Amino acid sequence: KASGLHMLQNFPWLLWAYACCCSISFCGRVVVWPTDASHWINVKVLLQELVLRGHEVTVLVPSSNLLINYQDTSSPFTFEVLQVPFSQETLDASMEDFLNFWMNEASNLFPWEIMWTMKEQLEVFTNMSKQTCDTLVMNSHLIAKLQQAKFDVLIADPLSVGGELVAEILEIPFIYSFRFSDGNVVERLCGGLPSPPSYVPASTMGLTHQMSFMERLQNFLFYIFTDLFFVKFWRDEWDGYYSNVLGKAAVEWFLFLHRTYWDFEFPRPFLPNFEFVGGLHCQPAKPLPKVSQLHSAIGCSGEHGIIVFTLGSMVYNLSDEKSNVIAKALSQLPQKVLWRYKGKKPETLGSNTKIYDWIPQNDLLGHPLTKAFITHGGTNGLYEAIYHGIPMVGIPMFADQHDNIAHMVAKGAAVQVDFNTMKTQDLADALNTVIYNSTYKENALKLSKIQHDQPVKPLDRAVFWIEFVMRHKGAKHLRPAAHHLTWYQYHSLDVLAFLFTCTATIVFILFKCSASGNYTDCLGANGRLES
Amino acid sequence: KASGLHMLQNFPWLLWAYACCCSISFCGRVVVWPTDASHWINVKVLLQELVLRGHEVTVLVPSSNLLINYQDTSSPFTFEVLQVPFSQETLDASMEDFLNFWMNEASNLFPWEIMWTMKEQLEVFTNMSKQTCDTLVMNSHLIAKLQQAKFDVLIADPLSVGGELVAEILEIPFIYSFRFSDGNVVERLCGGLPSPPSYVPASTMGLTHQMSFMERLQNFLFYIFTDLFFVKFWRDEWDGYYSNVLGKAAVEWFLFLHRTYWDFEFPRPFLPNFEFVGGLHCQPAKPLPKVSQLHSAIGCSGEHGIIVFTLGSMVYNLSDEKSNVIAKALSQLPQKVLWRYKGKKPETLGSNTKIYDWIPQNDLLGHPLTKAFITHGGTNGLYEAIYHGIPMVGIPMFADQHDNIAHMVAKGAAVQVDFNTMKTQDLADALNTVIYNSTYKENALKLSKIQHDQPVKPLDRAVFWIEFVMRHKGAKHLRPAAHHLTWYQYHSLDVLAFLFTCTATIVFILFKCSASGNYTDCLGANGRLES
Repeated sequence: KASGLHMLQNFPWLLWAYACCCSISFCGRVVVWPTDASHWINVKVLLQELVLRGHEVTVLVPSSNLLINYQDTSSPFTFEVLQVPFSQETLDASMEDFLNFWMNEASNLFPWEIMWTMKEQLEVFTNMSKQTCDTLVMNSHLIAKLQQAKFDVLIADPLSVGGELVAEILEIPFIYSFRFSDGNVVERLCGGLPSPPSYVPASTMGLTHQMSFMERLQNFLFYIFTDLFFVKFWRDEWDGYYSNVLGKAAVEWFLFLHRTYWDFEFPRPFLPNFEFVGGLHCQPAKPLPKVSQLHSAIGCSGEHGIIVFTLGSMVYNLSDEKSNVIAKALSQLPQKVLWRYKGKKPETLGSNTKIYDWIPQNDLLGHPLTKAFITHGGTNGLYEAIYHGIPMVGIPMFADQHDNIAHMVAKGAAVQVDFNTMKTQDLADALNTVIYNSTYKENALKLSKIQHDQPVKPLDRAVFWIEFVMRHKGAKHLRPAAHHLTWYQYHSLDVLAFLFTCTATIVFILFKCSASGNYTDCLGANGRLES
Repeated sequence: KASGLHMLQNFPWLLWAYACCCSISFCGRVVVWPTDASHWINVKVLLQELVLRGHEVTVLVPSSNLLINYQDTSSPFTFEVLQVPFSQETLDASMEDFLNFWMNEASNLFPWEIMWTMKEQLEVFTNMSKQTCDTLVMNSHLIAKLQQAKFDVLIADPLSVGGELVAEILEIPFIYSFRFSDGNVVERLCGGLPSPPSYVPASTMGLTHQMSFMERLQNFLFYIFTDLFFVKFWRDEWDGYYSNVLGKAAVEWFLFLHRTYWDFEFPRPFLPNFEFVGGLHCQPAKPLPKVSQLHSAIGCSGEHGIIVFTLGSMVYNLSDEKSNVIAKALSQLPQKVLWRYKGKKPETLGSNTKIYDWIPQNDLLGHPLTKAFITHGGTNGLYEAIYHGIPMVGIPMFADQHDNIAHMVAKGAAVQVDFNTMKTQDLADALNTVIYNSTYKENALKLSKIQHDQPVKPLDRAVFWIEFVMRHKGAKHLRPAAHHLTWYQYHSLDVLAFLFTCTATIVFILFKCSASGNYTDCLGANGRLES
């Protein structure tokens, strides 16, 4: 293998030129196995940047999906549509069931009932994921087409299982872009991410890095629970599927682009193949169009300023009771409230509150008059608030939302309100607190300073590492040797067992010797037993 | 605390301007608590860069030292000389004893004899460190002077204990610049660095990340040994000293600039306050002066090229026997050899070998004709070889040198030769291997590509984080909560004990119930015992 590299040996400056050329003019081919909904909103920004830098991006998209508009002819991406056997209606209904359960039902159930529903929901989505995978792996024509396209890297989101399978079939490196898994179980068990349960709270638990004994106990038990749940209902299932397709379960894991940063995260151990690129989608606010409704609404807000309110891309409507509780609270405030909401207009809506189908969230959060952000706690919106230094009121509902808001509360930039038990006064109090108690604004600005004060911007770092993987055909030098160990080897349990056995043997022999020694001692000088 | 931050709330663009101004025009005051010898060579490059960027650098230097020339009037640093009670001769003699032991004596001793000498050596150097600290803490005039200077940050090397003490006295944040501690014990026990002994080899062991069972056992035991040794002979000692001076033992730990990178390191877990800036001192080679001896020596090397040879800044001479073995091996090669050596000229020196008091090592390693580097395995030289993509022959002697060479051997860029048992043919064979087996050159070039292909150069990253700490008066958001936990809390041992107690109690109760239940069952329908 006297490769091209070898030719460079006498000309070290060529190495520099090579590196420079690579980083400037390398045009790669990227294939994407996306996750839908808010995940797609985030990864789209990254993919758009890749296109801007001259790379070709092909997205493998299921024909039934929530937010990935593959019929958009103005899209900079090439879409390869997977004709999945489930209909759009089935998908929408499953999502509605999911949301309905977490928003309206879960709070009234016992833990084991929640667990049972979680298992059932997982089965529904796993089934759809498998059908999506089937659509690809059983289509040899499509596989041949994708192989011929000679992609350099696959970008996947582990929430949509199958990305690493496609990467294996295409024999290309792959990169995960992700925010979290339940209890960080994918990162821990698949990525080898060390997470001491004593100060690394499992995701979705809403705990912080400083836990009481009872919280540490809770966290420890949740680690064990998620590990067992994951291995039983997820890993074994997919290992079987992968083995059927590939003839092996293991896949190469290259790089993990984590959608948070240390303004949001609690400091915790990580590995060199984890890059924290949270807030990569954030941008300076663009001014609002002068003739827009929004512009005039903000114009008359006066010294009190405005409040931006959204419950995210997934929640379209609320119960009448809930929406009236919220609207009444908002009506008591001197601020103008801009509420993104598609449901029925609440009766208690105040004159200070305007409802919109859609709002330019980033531009509004970056507006000088914005005083607070009411959010469900999705990472996208939350990072826009961090970026612009806006204090938050969090109304978390499901998935990582409780967790995300717990982080912001712990960092002093948010107040949390319970979605299920919330009264009008609770929300009004929370808003008054974050607006009129200056520490919340100060803390939000501190987080903003950390977000802005990085050696390289998150979007540039994410692009750099994707290009790095394309240039170097992977990043094996960042892959920990933990992947070659069994779980008991990883935790040195075999070493401990060996040491324990040795110690026990030595103690046993010593005990025996000393016992027989005593026996000898017991024999008197004349060799007879003395009492 | 309605701070200046609060004023910015209505003008988010000011945040940007603030951040930009900070990073461009912030001129800080840096105070340094250095470690001598090769550590100083590395940190000096970083300090020079800080001066170039407009910061003021003051170095606290003991009057007796090895390489820190505080009488150099052309130095860009201000030196504050600590008049230590030990003489230059005492220091030199201690260093010579240390080197002599590791180079000539240790290999013939039993492990416990080595351990005993290590303890004695540690006492000698701890004593000198304490005397150096005393010189400062007992000089109230000097302390007042340093306090008035209003430094923004202290840079220390943990090998010279006392840096964090001075930072506490001056009430400023501090940053560690370091390569390793024995078994990574300082990083693990003081820095909270998670290190699974199953794939993270303890430093100074010469192991890699892929270990057999016996190696993992060895590594595990070495972790325990270094932990006990460190706690007994180092931590307790210094905790006592710090408590006397400060009234407390604990200090704030901010940031750790590690003098390696992932081309050199095996992938391992780390924390967000660890920044890997290995090779920050490396630079493109400058051409050699045309009238120099070196230039003419290289000129007549022809197609075979040259070999660069140095045993580092600490080793001045070798035994006659050893130097003759080496010289004879070198004389058998077709390459020209440039040897940095201050000892007696060996009798077997070949005509192809030239001895120099000093060589421009980086410029020679970057010369197009350089084929190999013979090194003791210090990180400074090793990184210059990585930077320029030169394969190595390692002759490690003490400290981290075995470890460093083991890394390069595992990465396929070096061959190791045993200093104590080395024969002429061993060295000649090793050199022929790295020069004529092209995989060594290819692997060295791969490492070089990784070193060059970073989003930000190591020196710029190191400077960025030092400036970050100055701008933000620390980096508390990167400090893991592990520092607030006891060792048994950190490892969740209290949680495990609680769970074990609960389980045992339940089992005991069940056992009792079932025992009494069995007794009831045993009673037949008629209430009599049935057999």
